[in-house]
Amino acid sequence: MKLTFLGTSDWIPTAKRNHTAILLTHDGENILVDCGEGTQRQFRKAGISPTKITRLLITHWHGDHVLGIPGLLQSLALQGYNKTLHIYGPKGTKKFIEEVQKVFVFQEHRIPLKVEEVSGRFFEGKDFYLEAKPMTHGTPCNAYCFVKKGQIRIDKKKLKKYHIPSGPILSNLKQGKSIIYNGKKYSAKDLTYNEKGTKISFVFDTSLNINIIPFVKDSDLLISESTFIDEIREKAKEHKHLTAKQAAEIAKKSESKKLILIHIGQRYERDLNVVLNEAKKVFKNSALVNDLDVVEV
Amino acid sequence: MKLTFLGTSDWIPTAKRNHTAILLTHDGENILVDCGEGTQRQFRKAGISPTKITRLLITHWHGDHVLGIPGLLQSLALQGYNKTLHIYGPKGTKKFIEEVQKVFVFQEHRIPLKVEEVSGRFFEGKDFYLEAKPMTHGTPCNAYCFVKKGQIRIDKKKLKKYHIPSGPILSNLKQGKSIIYNGKKYSAKDLTYNEKGTKISFVFDTSLNINIIPFVKDSDLLISESTFIDEIREKAKEHKHLTAKQAAEIAKKSESKKLILIHIGQRYERDLNVVLNEAKKVFKNSALVNDLDVVEV
Repeated sequence: MKLTFLGTSDWIPTAKRNHTAILLTHDGENILVDCGEGTQRQFRKAGISPTKITRLLITHWHGDHVLGIPGLLQSLALQGYNKTLHIYGPKGTKKFIEEVQKVFVFQEHRIPLKVEEVSGRFFEGKDFYLEAKPMTHGTPCNAYCFVKKGQIRIDKKKLKKYHIPSGPILSNLKQGKSIIYNGKKYSAKDLTYNEKGTKISFVFDTSLNINIIPFVKDSDLLISESTFIDEIREKAKEHKHLTAKQAAEIAKKSESKKLILIHIGQRYERDLNVVLNEAKKVFKNSALVNDLDVVEV
Repeated sequence: MKLTFLGTSDWIPTAKRNHTAILLTHDGENILVDCGEGTQRQFRKAGISPTKITRLLITHWHGDHVLGIPGLLQSLALQGYNKTLHIYGPKGTKKFIEEVQKVFVFQEHRIPLKVEEVSGRFFEGKDFYLEAKPMTHGTPCNAYCFVKKGQIRIDKKKLKKYHIPSGPILSNLKQGKSIIYNGKKYSAKDLTYNEKGTKISFVFDTSLNINIIPFVKDSDLLISESTFIDEIREKAKEHKHLTAKQAAEIAKKSESKKLILIHIGQRYERDLNVVLNEAKKVFKNSALVNDLDVVEV
C-alpha cells in the first residue's frame, strides 16, 4: 500500500501545507481520505490524475476537510471520469453532497455518485475491507480503518502432527475446501490459519474518547491528527482535538507499529520538533510528514 | 496601485498555476477579483493576510472563479475579521452567497457581509470608482474596471489667457470653488481640467462581444482571459472564451496601454510563447504572468 500525503495542515493552510487529504493506493484502488480545499491541485503537484480516485472517505464536514469536494467533482466530470465514485461519510453526508451538487456542480458536469453514511464495516473487497467508527468532534465524525486481509496459510505444524505430506492437494485448503488423506477428512479450518492483515488507521478530527483505542488496535500505521501539544491540552479538549501526547498514547496503548502525525497546529510550524519530541517520548516510532510525501506500508 | 496575481490557471489548476484570483491594492483598499479554490492558501504564499481584503468582485459563478469563497469566509471569521466584507457580482450573486453560507459556513463562523448585484458604476470612493459591465459566458458574468481618479489641475494656459497670476487663491479652484480676480468671477470649470485617471480593467470569462471595447477603453492595464489561441477560435466561441489574438485586438482597439493575459489554457503551459507571440503580433505590449507575480501600475 502507498500513502500520498496530499495535505497535512490544520484548519488554516500555510505556504507549505495544504488542507487535509490523504490518498491510499492499493491494487487498482485509490482511496482518498478527506478532500480539503485545493486537493485537486495537490493531485497535480503529486503527478497523479484525480480520475484515478475510486472511493472518497469523509471524516467530517468541517470546511478544512471537505471544501475541495465541489471542485473535485466538477474536474472529474470535465476530465471524463467514467466510473461511479463511492463516497462514504458520517451521518449527514447524503444531505451535504446533495447540497454541494445543487449549489456548485452544474447539471452537465455531474458524475455518477454512490453516497453512503457509514459506521462499522462498510466495504468488503476481495483482499481488503474498510471500517468506520464514530468519533467526538462537535459535528458527526468518523475514524476509518483500511485492512488488507492476511493470506490463508497452511499450518505446517499441523501437517506434521497429522503426518500429511506436502502436495498439490493442499491448494484446496487455501480455497477453504476440505481434503481427504488416508481416508480421513480434514477441513480447511483444521489445517490453515489466517495470516495477520495490514491495518492502516485514520483518526482526524476528534477529542480523546473511548472508541479510539479498540478501533485502531494493532495498526501497522496509525495516522492521527495532532493539533495541539500537551501544555495546552485544555484548549485541545475545548476545541475537540488531540494533542501530540494523546496521539502517541493511543499509538502505544493500541500496540500500533507506527504513528504519523498530521493536522499539526500552524503555531508549531516554526519548530515542529516540539510536536515530534512530545510524541516520541511516549511512542518512539512517531513521525511527521510534509505535503506530497509518500509512505509505503 | 499594486496587482498581486494570486491565481492564473484556466478551469483545471496545474502544479504551477492556481485558479483565478487577483488582488488590487491601493491606499488601504484590497480588492480581490475572483476567488478560485485555494485562494486563501495563495494569500499565505504571497505573505499577505486575507483579513486585509476590503472588497470581493466576482466575475461569474463558475467553480474555477468562486470555489475559494466558502473557505475564505470561514478563515476570515476564524482570524477575527472585524470589517464588513463588500461582495459585488453579477445577477444571482445574492442567492449564491446565501447558499454557500447555508451549506458551508457555520453560524458561529460568519462575518458581516454586504452583497450587491452590480452593473454600471457601483462604487464611488474618494479617489477611485468601480464599474461593471455584463459579458457573455453562458452564466451571468461581469467585466470590471477600477479607475483611480485623476487630480484636478490648474490650466496654466487659461491663467495666462486671462492674465491671472499664480497665488494661494488658486487652491480654491482645486476644491471646485470660484474665484474673483480683478472684479471678475471665474468658476473652477473655467480654469481647471481633470487629469486622466488610471484605469485597470478585468475581462474574464467571456466570448467576444460588443460591450468589451467601449468598457475597457483607454485602460492603463487590461487583464484579459485568453483560454485559447486563434487556430481553434471556433472552440473558444463554443465555450464562450477569448483567444489570445482576440484579447490583443481588444487591447489595440480600446487603445489600452498594456495587456496581461491570464486564464491561459493548460494545453499551452509547455510552450507559453505560442500564446504570447500571437498576442504580441497584434498588440506589442502584451505580457504573461506567473502566480504570485506583482505588477505595479
